[in-house]
Amino acid sequence: LADLPIGVFDSGIGGLTVLRALERELPDEEFLYLGDTARLPYGTKTAQTVERYALQAGGELVRRGIKCLVVACNTASSASLPALRAAFPTLPVLGVIDPGASAAVQASRAGRIGVLATEATVRSGAYERAIRGLRPDARVSSVAASLFVALAEEGWTEGEVATPTARRYLGDLKALAGDVDTLVLGCTHFPPFVPLLRSLLPADCAIVDSAATTATAVRQCLADYTRTPAPGPMRLLATDGIERFARVGARFLGRPIGEAQVERVDLTAVV
Amino acid sequence: LADLPIGVFDSGIGGLTVLRALERELPDEEFLYLGDTARLPYGTKTAQTVERYALQAGGELVRRGIKCLVVACNTASSASLPALRAAFPTLPVLGVIDPGASAAVQASRAGRIGVLATEATVRSGAYERAIRGLRPDARVSSVAASLFVALAEEGWTEGEVATPTARRYLGDLKALAGDVDTLVLGCTHFPPFVPLLRSLLPADCAIVDSAATTATAVRQCLADYTRTPAPGPMRLLATDGIERFARVGARFLGRPIGEAQVERVDLTAVV
Repeated sequence: LADLPIGVFDSGIGGLTVLRALERELPDEEFLYLGDTARLPYGTKTAQTVERYALQAGGELVRRGIKCLVVACNTASSASLPALRAAFPTLPVLGVIDPGASAAVQASRAGRIGVLATEATVRSGAYERAIRGLRPDARVSSVAASLFVALAEEGWTEGEVATPTARRYLGDLKALAGDVDTLVLGCTHFPPFVPLLRSLLPADCAIVDSAATTATAVRQCLADYTRTPAPGPMRLLATDGIERFARVGARFLGRPIGEAQVERVDLTAVV
Repeated sequence: LADLPIGVFDSGIGGLTVLRALERELPDEEFLYLGDTARLPYGTKTAQTVERYALQAGGELVRRGIKCLVVACNTASSASLPALRAAFPTLPVLGVIDPGASAAVQASRAGRIGVLATEATVRSGAYERAIRGLRPDARVSSVAASLFVALAEEGWTEGEVATPTARRYLGDLKALAGDVDTLVLGCTHFPPFVPLLRSLLPADCAIVDSAATTATAVRQCLADYTRTPAPGPMRLLATDGIERFARVGARFLGRPIGEAQVERVDLTAVV
């Protein structure tokens, strides 16, 4: 069991930011990443549909053999953790929302926390619940920053289009919540916007995302498994668009991805 | 046969602009519209995946009974017409690219035609082929305007974000092709940007989309079928997110959509 890879599942390429943090935190581990690029984005879909897709993806990774499943997509984390845990009762299943909430609570002085996320994650209320579970007096407000997903995939994370977009979403957040002391990036597509958001927010506002705290949570969860070092290469699976996955994904992983590293997999065959 | 509805298939809600034109052109017909909202957008997916999805959607509409299939999505039209015609050999199957190409050739004086479309439609080269088939000396250049899809769904079709985005895509087109005399909107999500594009383009540049010419092509194709008037209500199917389909779709159909008008359908059960 110890020598099996850690499974990482995302709707597409955004979860590569979490994979990057996992590799840094757990350099001796092997990883098997699955991006459901044939059906992305999840952020505009209903919770039931996202849950069904997550079960198919989890099933595929379990069939290939993993020792732990990381749901590296905020929308999927908000919609599918109970179903995944019920379907795979002996497998540790970790999402990114509890770690993101924990990072927010650690960073926040006054408990005034803003969340930028997808439409589906905002609708789920998952961050509000997770943050208030850790700090009941926190004031949490969420805004759907739908356009950030497309902007990140286009690579437009600063400049004349991204700046007014970010200003508008932060304005919506301010109208809703006043000044926040901590901003949570509740979607794995959003870390590339940190420099821009940093330039638009007050200097004392913390910006946190789930990647680092998720990696820490995974390390703690796996502490009981000793691992033979010297892992093999990371393996990447995608349900569609290998060329695009490699090209756009490199921005999220932080290094080039060769098309030969990515295997295409069909989830609709999995029931 | 004459009394069966006309089937209209799109990746989501953009095809409602085509449905609107069809209703105007063919007021005595009944329509059955299917939006594959569970798997949209198609524009970033590979041709093989889009073809598979289109066959499932076409199969569902054929099973329910239609006399003609309109593929109201440019990406699906570019990727799936041969497969759909092979799968349903007795059914007239019409896409939006040939009508769009025809509209462009009619509008163009000098044959300098620019196309804004999705990544997948641009990659397919379908507009270039269709336009040159009608006018071999035409100079056709295409630019992927990926962000327009997300902007249209967000409802940001003018203002401080849409304007620099449109300016950038038109700039890419100009760098590629110089001044064009006709701009084709090669994605059904793009008609809401017409006022903005109009304001940025020279006054003598024509802007065309496929909706009206597709409706004309369907009318011509069905001329042999006489139809008993007094159609029933239009029926709408979506594979996910009824509430969102109704809310965002109203912008494309041009009138409100009641959630009760939209039926959810599961295409993954169709093989």
